[in-house]
Amino acid sequence: MAKQITVSAFRWVPPFAQGLVRDLRVRWALEEAGLAYTERLIGPEDQASASYRRLQPFGQVPSYEEDGLELFESGAIVLHVASRCEALMPADPAGRARVTTWAFAALNSVEPPVQDLAAIDLFYAEQDWAKQRRPGAVEAVQERLADLSAALDGRDFLVDRFSAADLLMTTVLRILRHTDLVARMPILEAYRLRCEARPAFQKALADQLAPFADQERLAAG
Amino acid sequence: MAKQITVSAFRWVPPFAQGLVRDLRVRWALEEAGLAYTERLIGPEDQASASYRRLQPFGQVPSYEEDGLELFESGAIVLHVASRCEALMPADPAGRARVTTWAFAALNSVEPPVQDLAAIDLFYAEQDWAKQRRPGAVEAVQERLADLSAALDGRDFLVDRFSAADLLMTTVLRILRHTDLVARMPILEAYRLRCEARPAFQKALADQLAPFADQERLAAG
Repeated sequence: MAKQITVSAFRWVPPFAQGLVRDLRVRWALEEAGLAYTERLIGPEDQASASYRRLQPFGQVPSYEEDGLELFESGAIVLHVASRCEALMPADPAGRARVTTWAFAALNSVEPPVQDLAAIDLFYAEQDWAKQRRPGAVEAVQERLADLSAALDGRDFLVDRFSAADLLMTTVLRILRHTDLVARMPILEAYRLRCEARPAFQKALADQLAPFADQERLAAG
Repeated sequence: MAKQITVSAFRWVPPFAQGLVRDLRVRWALEEAGLAYTERLIGPEDQASASYRRLQPFGQVPSYEEDGLELFESGAIVLHVASRCEALMPADPAGRARVTTWAFAALNSVEPPVQDLAAIDLFYAEQDWAKQRRPGAVEAVQERLADLSAALDGRDFLVDRFSAADLLMTTVLRILRHTDLVARMPILEAYRLRCEARPAFQKALADQLAPFADQERLAAG
């Protein structure tokens, strides 16, 4: 019998965050795996609630429920889905370890400086410290992007063929969409477009955005 | 036959980084698993070399070699070692997914703000922007620590018994050793001390520090 899967997502977020919230990663993985799921739409009041904190101790999105198994952290959920889906991760231990390596590279080596720059630009742009810090933050991002570009030179994907690692890395590169930092690196820009062209990505993105449009229609009365 | 395992580490780092470099995570995991390894000591000139970049595309430490399998990213290597060692990760898929969840929580939800504050204090303390930003950076760390403390309330470890997730989380909390942020939270301080009391941690730390002392003796002539 198919498992019942529930993924939490935001009912609405401001335009700068639309298409970037981390449930996109899980939706994309589930689409690649051909697994149906239900969304649990939440708002700020839920994030602070004790019942949501039991699912997600940091009050973030996404949480993941599957027949009694409760997980959080988009990276962990994507690897969990991938562990049962050859389209996202090879079945042999060495192949799995390689995909896991690049999954952590995406979220622990590339995402922190990327997120740092995004926070400066999207949350703190008017603050004095952010203006002073920005050039250094850009440099830190460019250094990681240059290394990533070198690793992808001559290859379509991080590990042999498309995998969970590419899915995660693409969502990290997307965080820079308000800049031209990726667009200026032809290898990375082609890589991002190659991954985003996948029907599973398109479906996941459309499904993430749909509730936001509903809310905006409601608000417009 | 036992696998040949090689882990890269720095020949020397300044005192503020001693005991924090990420190879400590891998050494600790290998000690818990009872697996012998060889260290590949490197310096700044190696980090930039093409041969090291083939092992570690971002020029960081650690890299990991095991009979033809080449990995990097401390989180991925620790989970790889843990996947063959019940002391670090349960064998059932649900237990593995829970440990993986907390591994990503350590490295993707807690470490980024912690590392951000450490960079402000250890690399940029004299800069104007760092002084202005520090209170906000402290607040971001405290928020995550409070959530982590709530999740650990009444429990000795993140998932049932000691696991790879506790190993990673402990090494993240250690990054704050130049502050009293962890010490001021009794649940987290007791947790850190509980994990650091493990003989495998003590051995891993001593082995990481030994080459630094050798270098310092050499330099002292």
